[in-house]
Amino acid sequence: MNLLKLGYKITKLYAFNHLFLKHSLCNISSYICSMSFLEDKTPNRIPLSKLGEFGLIQHISKNFELKNDTSVFGIGDDCAVIDVGHHFQLLTTDMLIEGVHFDLTYTPLKHLGYKSVVVNLSDIYAMNGLPKQITVSIALSNRFPLEAVEELYEGIRLACVAYNVDLVGGDTTSSTSGLCLSITAVGEVSKDKIVYRNGAKEYDLIVVSGDLGSAYLGLQLLNREKQVFESNPQMQPDLQNKDYVLQRQLRPEARKDIIDLFESKGIVPNSMIDISDGLSSELLHLCSNSKVGCAIYEEKLPIDFMAISIAEEFNISAATCALNGGEDYELLFTISQAHYDAIKDDPDLTIIGHITDVSHGSELVTKDENHQPLTAQGWNALS
Amino acid sequence: MNLLKLGYKITKLYAFNHLFLKHSLCNISSYICSMSFLEDKTPNRIPLSKLGEFGLIQHISKNFELKNDTSVFGIGDDCAVIDVGHHFQLLTTDMLIEGVHFDLTYTPLKHLGYKSVVVNLSDIYAMNGLPKQITVSIALSNRFPLEAVEELYEGIRLACVAYNVDLVGGDTTSSTSGLCLSITAVGEVSKDKIVYRNGAKEYDLIVVSGDLGSAYLGLQLLNREKQVFESNPQMQPDLQNKDYVLQRQLRPEARKDIIDLFESKGIVPNSMIDISDGLSSELLHLCSNSKVGCAIYEEKLPIDFMAISIAEEFNISAATCALNGGEDYELLFTISQAHYDAIKDDPDLTIIGHITDVSHGSELVTKDENHQPLTAQGWNALS
Repeated sequence: MNLLKLGYKITKLYAFNHLFLKHSLCNISSYICSMSFLEDKTPNRIPLSKLGEFGLIQHISKNFELKNDTSVFGIGDDCAVIDVGHHFQLLTTDMLIEGVHFDLTYTPLKHLGYKSVVVNLSDIYAMNGLPKQITVSIALSNRFPLEAVEELYEGIRLACVAYNVDLVGGDTTSSTSGLCLSITAVGEVSKDKIVYRNGAKEYDLIVVSGDLGSAYLGLQLLNREKQVFESNPQMQPDLQNKDYVLQRQLRPEARKDIIDLFESKGIVPNSMIDISDGLSSELLHLCSNSKVGCAIYEEKLPIDFMAISIAEEFNISAATCALNGGEDYELLFTISQAHYDAIKDDPDLTIIGHITDVSHGSELVTKDENHQPLTAQGWNALS
Repeated sequence: MNLLKLGYKITKLYAFNHLFLKHSLCNISSYICSMSFLEDKTPNRIPLSKLGEFGLIQHISKNFELKNDTSVFGIGDDCAVIDVGHHFQLLTTDMLIEGVHFDLTYTPLKHLGYKSVVVNLSDIYAMNGLPKQITVSIALSNRFPLEAVEELYEGIRLACVAYNVDLVGGDTTSSTSGLCLSITAVGEVSKDKIVYRNGAKEYDLIVVSGDLGSAYLGLQLLNREKQVFESNPQMQPDLQNKDYVLQRQLRPEARKDIIDLFESKGIVPNSMIDISDGLSSELLHLCSNSKVGCAIYEEKLPIDFMAISIAEEFNISAATCALNGGEDYELLFTISQAHYDAIKDDPDLTIIGHITDVSHGSELVTKDENHQPLTAQGWNALS
């Protein structure tokens, strides 16, 4: 902590110099504050966990307003929206930190590269757009040789090929410890086809693509086998016949096919979001942004048979995994009932409920017909 | 290292399952390789330091090609260039890691926020563009309270106001140790006014804005005072009358005014780059991308009087600081001799040499008329 005190002392001199005062970037009190944050252990500092990720974003973004005509939409949806003339451009970014978002014990670097791209592209699709370019920044420590970086970028390249996006830039630098990845994706969408989170209307059908909960169960499985191995390195991991959930965790795909389906059927959803943090959490975002309520039905939740059997093995509810698991990267959207016929027979789409008036609240109807308020228990990066 | 062996064992099962084989994303050998990288201490693995940052970028980017029509220019300039219709869009990103790029002992978080934005905007100006939007991603450990994050974002906000850019998105997450920042900036430039690194022509004048070496000397000063303090916490830092170099290090500005000057004088440089890693390094990029040589003159290098006096105090050559110091965020550009009259009296611009045929090489003419080859000794993130 001594080093920090130096900052404090330098500060005093800076203040005498009025070095930063003239630009009002920093005055003595804020300078001292900014340094003393790091050494101050008094309890009146507010820990980030108290706000959580979404609370922090809300807290910060209230100080920022959009001034440029081309900034159509800023913080608060899957992507930022920029007006570039005859279409909108979509911009999204994600940061992945070793030890927080991934565990290199069981995550191959090639898969990590692939997944890191996919999670960003998923945000572009969630606005009904098509991704076109990405930038990739990495910071890595000297424990990574060139061959490791090649593996990571091979996964990135395969995702670029699979989704027809171009790697156009980035940054490569060193870190003091683990691997840190930051990817930004750029996409395009017609101005008349962009879908926000805030357009859900009463009586809309609530639809999800694919199935839910498997990625979470894949993670539980990998963590369990890691723990078994830690306590007894002679044990062989028990991962046979668990392909699907492992693949959902280690190498998810983004639902470009659903966007193509919308195009071919002439459907523009009223609202959409991708499921990265869990169905409940994302549906609550949709409802609060659209100022509506919702009712979804537990018995309608699409869950793969393997996920159900693994949930039983773990003695947890498969429905809970589907509601709160996260990392499925499926699309959650609402459409007018007029589109019911166009989607009802699609095996990749499941109607799980409908949008209600805001006064109704957001509720889950359980299999035994209990009506429960929906709560967000999914991933929160700062909890 | 035991954990890593688990990866190895899981791998074998994966291979039996042919889980990833069908998508050719991962076969057994590559999976095993990717895991064993981290435990393999054999000397035949290539350390990243052997390639350095630019070598690594070159090595990776050769596997990526641009396929989308809208991807005009990818890796290899200050920004990626995207064709959005009636103008080009510029995209650039930078990652800043605590302990590598900044030291929170003497860097106030507000200044860090401001500088993090400015270094990205500088890349947009270096293509003769105007920045419009930024996204900011941060990962931070639980040692940072809300008040620290507020300070950081206050610096970001002040930069947004100063340069008229909008914060439109980002990501906030936790890290296991230090602070990690990743900023992406988006800008615009007319298709007929974009300036690349590769357009320098023989006989062009080589011009730099502002002065060089001060930011590096500011850093030396802060590091020295930190060391003094570490060995004797009773010492008061000796930073009086050092305002300018400290400001250059802690709160640099991007040269929007130079882009405005070009516009008002009807000048479009033939080539341009911003000086983040040091004049020598950047000029060599310009020359190799443009396939030309250059001659610059030591006596012409613009160096602030305070920087000269501090260089003397440190017993290092001020010219070396100017050539290799880095972080000045000035613009280095080449213009046709026809523009000489338009810039010759501008106190903010200095002609430091001229472009030659490639056969001439890149040389520095010292004050005593020695002709030396120019070498890049500036910042290398992976050296």
